[in-house]
Amino acid sequence: MQKQTEYSDAIKTKYPEQVVIAIAKDKNGKANPITLGWTMIVSGNPSMMAIAVAKTHYSIEAITHSKSFTIAFPSSEMADAALFFGSKSGRDTDKFAEFNCKTEPAKSIDSLLLADAVANFECTLESQMPAGDHIIFVGRIVCSHINTESKKRLYTIGPGHKLGSVS
Amino acid sequence: MQKQTEYSDAIKTKYPEQVVIAIAKDKNGKANPITLGWTMIVSGNPSMMAIAVAKTHYSIEAITHSKSFTIAFPSSEMADAALFFGSKSGRDTDKFAEFNCKTEPAKSIDSLLLADAVANFECTLESQMPAGDHIIFVGRIVCSHINTESKKRLYTIGPGHKLGSVS
Repeated sequence: MQKQTEYSDAIKTKYPEQVVIAIAKDKNGKANPITLGWTMIVSGNPSMMAIAVAKTHYSIEAITHSKSFTIAFPSSEMADAALFFGSKSGRDTDKFAEFNCKTEPAKSIDSLLLADAVANFECTLESQMPAGDHIIFVGRIVCSHINTESKKRLYTIGPGHKLGSVS
Repeated sequence: MQKQTEYSDAIKTKYPEQVVIAIAKDKNGKANPITLGWTMIVSGNPSMMAIAVAKTHYSIEAITHSKSFTIAFPSSEMADAALFFGSKSGRDTDKFAEFNCKTEPAKSIDSLLLADAVANFECTLESQMPAGDHIIFVGRIVCSHINTESKKRLYTIGPGHKLGSVS
């Protein structure tokens, strides 16, 4: 049976929520990673994924500049990187310079892959749409990569950015 | 270390993937539920969620007709309902008539809630955008509900519509 409640209360039932790290280069060539929980696949053929990025975030500038971005599925060992990339702003921080996170060059776009991620998807910007306080970016996947080792994905498993693996 | 691979291979790392059931009434007043894995929150203030629905699906007609829909988070006991609602078409099936799934009337829109779901979110259609073979519908959440009992969410935990709970 359902009882009506505040959205802020009902949305606490969303966990575990997937975590991705989106990476785009800004106009100075600095690769900027941002940790996001608001992401989904949106098309099977052609393959596309979407992310929702807060309008105030520096990633908006980086993605609209480079018109491409990587979506990485961080592994469960990457909680510290996910927290760092999600709590600092690329406007005043070079996140990859300040936090040691192994990267590899992307193959088809001018961006980076996360070497220890479960998988990486290189996307070209297909379209974008504002939605409330965020912008939805739709990326067409032009190149895909998986880790040579078997890894578990990272999830937000509870409020307060509690990160971990699930089974 | 990353190795380049086919998208179809890399995307197998996505599990567990959340499951929602979206419900919209068609022009005949028939409530049509569809099971979806492609969904995300897109805005905090105002609260909005998005779903991606295949262009061929009957739900496209129902949502564009009623300009509103419910997003239910099914509970882990609702795997059979999720499979049924995800495998039949509302074009030739009255899914709620054929599959016994307890519903309650929505409060703010002309739709239904799933009584045994973990939570239900009533959405008015805010915007829509095509993305490849799907359409992204953005809903503004106008009313929220949670189950009076504590329940676990349903996830797709592996390929082939393998459904279950996670911890």
